[in-house]
Amino acid sequence: MTNKLYDTSLSLLTDLYQITMAYGYWKSGTAEKEAVFNLYFRKHPFSGGFTIACGLTNVIGYINNFSLSKKDLRYLRTLTGNDGQPLFEEAFLDYLANLKLTCDIEAIPEGTVVFPNEPLVRVRGPILQCQLLETPLLNLINFESLVATKAARLRLVAENDTLLEFGLRRAQGIDGGMTASRAAYIGGCDATSNVLAGKLYDIPVRGTHAHSWVMSFADELEAFQTYADVLPNNVTLLVDTYDTLQGVRNAIEAGRTLVQKGYKLAGIRLDSGDLAYLSIEARKLLDEAGFTDTAIVASNDLDETIINSLKQQGAKINIWGVGTKLVTAYDQPALGGVYKLAALRQESISPDEESGWDYKMKLSEQAIKISTPGIQQVRRFRNERGFVADMIVDENSLNDTDSTTSMTMIDPLDFTKRRTFDAKQEFDDLLVPVFRRGTCVYTSPDIHSIRARVQEQLANLHPGVKRFVNPHTYPVGLEKQLHELKTELILKLRERNEQ
Amino acid sequence: MTNKLYDTSLSLLTDLYQITMAYGYWKSGTAEKEAVFNLYFRKHPFSGGFTIACGLTNVIGYINNFSLSKKDLRYLRTLTGNDGQPLFEEAFLDYLANLKLTCDIEAIPEGTVVFPNEPLVRVRGPILQCQLLETPLLNLINFESLVATKAARLRLVAENDTLLEFGLRRAQGIDGGMTASRAAYIGGCDATSNVLAGKLYDIPVRGTHAHSWVMSFADELEAFQTYADVLPNNVTLLVDTYDTLQGVRNAIEAGRTLVQKGYKLAGIRLDSGDLAYLSIEARKLLDEAGFTDTAIVASNDLDETIINSLKQQGAKINIWGVGTKLVTAYDQPALGGVYKLAALRQESISPDEESGWDYKMKLSEQAIKISTPGIQQVRRFRNERGFVADMIVDENSLNDTDSTTSMTMIDPLDFTKRRTFDAKQEFDDLLVPVFRRGTCVYTSPDIHSIRARVQEQLANLHPGVKRFVNPHTYPVGLEKQLHELKTELILKLRERNEQ
Repeated sequence: MTNKLYDTSLSLLTDLYQITMAYGYWKSGTAEKEAVFNLYFRKHPFSGGFTIACGLTNVIGYINNFSLSKKDLRYLRTLTGNDGQPLFEEAFLDYLANLKLTCDIEAIPEGTVVFPNEPLVRVRGPILQCQLLETPLLNLINFESLVATKAARLRLVAENDTLLEFGLRRAQGIDGGMTASRAAYIGGCDATSNVLAGKLYDIPVRGTHAHSWVMSFADELEAFQTYADVLPNNVTLLVDTYDTLQGVRNAIEAGRTLVQKGYKLAGIRLDSGDLAYLSIEARKLLDEAGFTDTAIVASNDLDETIINSLKQQGAKINIWGVGTKLVTAYDQPALGGVYKLAALRQESISPDEESGWDYKMKLSEQAIKISTPGIQQVRRFRNERGFVADMIVDENSLNDTDSTTSMTMIDPLDFTKRRTFDAKQEFDDLLVPVFRRGTCVYTSPDIHSIRARVQEQLANLHPGVKRFVNPHTYPVGLEKQLHELKTELILKLRERNEQ
Repeated sequence: MTNKLYDTSLSLLTDLYQITMAYGYWKSGTAEKEAVFNLYFRKHPFSGGFTIACGLTNVIGYINNFSLSKKDLRYLRTLTGNDGQPLFEEAFLDYLANLKLTCDIEAIPEGTVVFPNEPLVRVRGPILQCQLLETPLLNLINFESLVATKAARLRLVAENDTLLEFGLRRAQGIDGGMTASRAAYIGGCDATSNVLAGKLYDIPVRGTHAHSWVMSFADELEAFQTYADVLPNNVTLLVDTYDTLQGVRNAIEAGRTLVQKGYKLAGIRLDSGDLAYLSIEARKLLDEAGFTDTAIVASNDLDETIINSLKQQGAKINIWGVGTKLVTAYDQPALGGVYKLAALRQESISPDEESGWDYKMKLSEQAIKISTPGIQQVRRFRNERGFVADMIVDENSLNDTDSTTSMTMIDPLDFTKRRTFDAKQEFDDLLVPVFRRGTCVYTSPDIHSIRARVQEQLANLHPGVKRFVNPHTYPVGLEKQLHELKTELILKLRERNEQ
């Protein structure tokens, strides 16, 4: 369950302001005040209609390993303010040294289709702890969800073709590559070229040879024949080092020897030039020579738009190798996930009674940037055709609802759009318990099950939502009580600011 | 000198085809054949006129730790081909288990200004080893050079203002954040918010508080006063949680108490809205209240274009916080570095004599994609005004040249453009020895010296080269002999393919 890549303490992998705020809470006596934060994004990446939640397994590993080391504290002790004096008191560093996370965390399982404003992760616990987790949680969820979504889009255009992820060399750092390989597989890739990701994450690996192999021999035919000789059960020949169609003819010649020995020419690979034209011509040459089962692999800065275009042009490509554009999510290299305070426990009036919550939100001139308060759950309604709508609802209203109550949801950007679901409507509540008082109570499914979940989820989405150009907006609303509470709070805050 | 982030074995952090090729070389008896590979890029990122070389320190750490573990070999043993049989023989795995890198590696030091087609790293050694290093070297150099270049561009527009890197939450994975923080500092940022990067890489860290701090109090003024009370030597107040200019007034009030106690209001931060208008209005309010030294920090999806525009609008901003757009190199999230075979030792004819080199290149229809053969060095000519031109030259010609010879360089894309440098012209040879027979012979300067080098280097570039719109192309050419050798080789390869 740990992140297998890092052995070093990652507990300082956070923004300094989380620690200065932690100090502020501690010093002002509010460190233990119970808070609720929601992690969500505001807009789908790639102008798309859906996003795939991913990264929870790494979040769990991060939290399970959270503990400030002596070295971490020694480093914090060296930090000074603008007067050259230490930023933090010793007693605070002692507090951090003994800090054990005790938060309750709910999250939407990896591989689930999610939509803007839905909490992917909800953290409830002492405000100081919630704050320390903000940056790493955002880092881990933002990037993996982004790449899983990109891969799911590629899978949609690749249909039943094989999809390979080749991106390590252009990824953003070592872990940019490792994490991308994991998320790409979950999102729908069939295999990766990244051997370490194969080893650590149980992802199938694929690979044969590069141009340098061909260049290291006196001629291409000798290079192909030698390769086929030594790795006869893994022969996909890269044919574009010198002249692509001549390369295909050489591959066929090497393939004939392979067949005589009882092996097969698994594929040829095109890595440059007009992939539509060359794949059609290569297919003809292969078929004429009897290599009808030999696959044509294509690579070279592919993304979902280019694959779609190549398919429309009748390209004869069976296997797509995708690298840079996938692992860096090239056309939108960051998902803008945020982490917002949504509720704060009121001061206790009596020691015998649990106090209520103050609901919290950030105002903004732009409606889309106003956060939603409350201890949120996402209720996804479905029918026999698939997902119908998602309703963001406060846990407290859920507790008040009995099994006979109908529920109304309101579009947050157009209050006149309402929809009522009666008690018979089937639903799933998406957020599940992951940590209880700091102890993990959730077991991540294995990576193959998470990957399968993505395809099951997408099958439940209307095709219009999966369209790339002007996708249909899947309906997500606020439960009526939560909507009213939010509206009241906005009016109250605006009024106070105008005074 | 190790990469401090990872303790796990990273030796399988490579594409599978590097290992299948390694197997092919081993099995066909050519594993030890001496090869030369060059790592270079073809085009500056961000449509710019320069690139900053970065990542060598992490490359050194990677290579110093290179060693396949038992677990790595156990994993490789499980890999099978399309007939279900193992890909690799046991004897090959034994070979890998005992493999020690013995390459000679030269590289251009971090912080150097570099140009397309110049080898940033040159690896010379047994072809099997060169191949295994391809993917990790590309991964490490591509990303750090990209971010260092982005930061250098931001530094150019920020001029003498303070530049902070805030990107961890949107970075591409943990190491996407860590590596970006390092490269951003080297490229010209003054500090990072990333505490772990501060600790591991000795980068100054900065941070104060977020919106959640303000929202956790009954009102903004109380939030500001409490913060100023507990961290009086680090007060930069975020003023846009509810209403920005009211926030500035509240900050001033908290600032007055601070001043009475002998501290100062270091800054206010704007994180939304019209930053030009708000900063001008905020400056007026602060100045009228006597807070003329209080800095105005701005953040919110900034990049070099927006900062430039804000400056032109007369924004009163002293400190720029840059996140997503910097750490993901948003407008071009990958540098397309490649690693190409450039020479291969000829078969030995006599045991007493060292054999010569076969020069190697990859052909392409596009001239820009044709690689340059040879054991390359980059000779940078300079005069009292700065850098004049870079010449890519074969080491063998350098050995033949004596101190009285003039040298001619030829533009690789326009052979009629020639330039001759006489022996008196001052120069530096950019590639320096980093490994000799697998042993590191280079000590990376500390991060602050590398950062200083970037600014020294940029000072030697003509302003036209540093311009963002249609920058002047700094002259890089091939030394005449190398140019002629390349041309001959192209003609020979084309001729052979036409037969």
